[in-house]
Amino acid sequence: MSKPLILVSNDDGITAPGIRMLVNVMKKIGEVVVVAPDSPQSGMGHAITVGNTLRLDKSLAFDDVEAWECSGTPADCVKLAKHHVLKERQPDLVVSGINHGSNSSVSVLYSGTMSAAIEAAIEGLPAIGFSLCDFGHGADFSHTEEFVELIARQALANGIPEGTALNVNFPKKSNKKIAGIKVCRQAQARWEEEFDERLDPNGRRYFWLTGNFINPDKGEDTDEWALAHNYVSIVPCQFDMTAHFAMVRLNNEWELGK
Amino acid sequence: MSKPLILVSNDDGITAPGIRMLVNVMKKIGEVVVVAPDSPQSGMGHAITVGNTLRLDKSLAFDDVEAWECSGTPADCVKLAKHHVLKERQPDLVVSGINHGSNSSVSVLYSGTMSAAIEAAIEGLPAIGFSLCDFGHGADFSHTEEFVELIARQALANGIPEGTALNVNFPKKSNKKIAGIKVCRQAQARWEEEFDERLDPNGRRYFWLTGNFINPDKGEDTDEWALAHNYVSIVPCQFDMTAHFAMVRLNNEWELGK
Repeated sequence: MSKPLILVSNDDGITAPGIRMLVNVMKKIGEVVVVAPDSPQSGMGHAITVGNTLRLDKSLAFDDVEAWECSGTPADCVKLAKHHVLKERQPDLVVSGINHGSNSSVSVLYSGTMSAAIEAAIEGLPAIGFSLCDFGHGADFSHTEEFVELIARQALANGIPEGTALNVNFPKKSNKKIAGIKVCRQAQARWEEEFDERLDPNGRRYFWLTGNFINPDKGEDTDEWALAHNYVSIVPCQFDMTAHFAMVRLNNEWELGK
Repeated sequence: MSKPLILVSNDDGITAPGIRMLVNVMKKIGEVVVVAPDSPQSGMGHAITVGNTLRLDKSLAFDDVEAWECSGTPADCVKLAKHHVLKERQPDLVVSGINHGSNSSVSVLYSGTMSAAIEAAIEGLPAIGFSLCDFGHGADFSHTEEFVELIARQALANGIPEGTALNVNFPKKSNKKIAGIKVCRQAQARWEEEFDERLDPNGRRYFWLTGNFINPDKGEDTDEWALAHNYVSIVPCQFDMTAHFAMVRLNNEWELGK
């Protein structure tokens, strides 16, 4: 049997330590092709490049793996991979990450890592985004390795439910052993922003976005609960955003004419 | 009774004709404050500015309306509006658009227009994104006016279901009268990409993203059906992306250890 073909992308850029770990684990499982941004794209959400051109060049970032670096967003990378680089042979699995920083709860919406996975899911490919709850460039990924391999092998063996992509988050490395893996719902939390206002050397005002994560959701079935209790969290994410309960309310309560 | 406070944003930039129409309609309903990008941000999805600074300056784009132009994304604009410009007084309604181009079906994921509305919803504010199925800079918005006003007034009167933002799309202007307003689900359609490969003047390769919209979803309850039949479509969108049906499948079918 031929080895599965695995496409790897990310949002921290092709030289980030996190994607290196992911490539090394995927090489144990299958044939790997990398298409990743040529520079960091954190916080890009599901951005795509529509009013501008895209570059795509061969990359020497990995010794023994076919790799391409792209000037666009993570979603652009997956589109270019599917429709150009891998036009003749579709990947059996798409993985993105490992992100330097959490993408749990509502952060999934801002996440370039997850937008690569969700773009793949829209295109009908099984896809997983991996993130570590540690923003440092020198973050320790060593405890994630066995779980990344297990989850990727399970995805290849069992498939991923249609219309979804998996959002996998790992607790930051600590002295405590990982407690296991939990399938979770997205916690109903949010960021409470603050803007750090400063003056530039020319006396013009500018802002840094900062903020605190607020989690009023006490459910023990959430990704935040799992991560706080040293579990690996998996949230299956759908890209159909329809709020069906709200359709009923609008039809019953609003007056929208005949 | 004091007039409602309405925040207006968009993704085509503060000088786009679409936001001018939206501001003019909102002035009939309430007090208007504009915080919008200083340049076009189409296709930005739910991007936020995390690794860079933000500018925010008073804008003269509107004669008699308080307006601010921001260097960031639509989601940045809403965050800056809520936590800085309108810190002392929260808006009663947030509207975004009117976008030059459709944001129906899966395009909601790539839409900067809708990311402004969804960001507002995450922050607990009632929010609506408006889009016209006409990409032209000179698009005719005249047929949208009465419906924009009706939908905004209904939102102020009845509220918008919690945890959702409304995605409103208008058919392109034609000789046919608008058939009415339909509350819809997001059609299960997608873009089939093609990349237009070219050489720059220096002989280096680049790409333009192009593509065809593929809609295999024949349901008559979808936004695509409504727009094709000359209705205004409203899809309530949630930002909880959990696919609950998939949680069950993963728990039953996958082997994730004890």
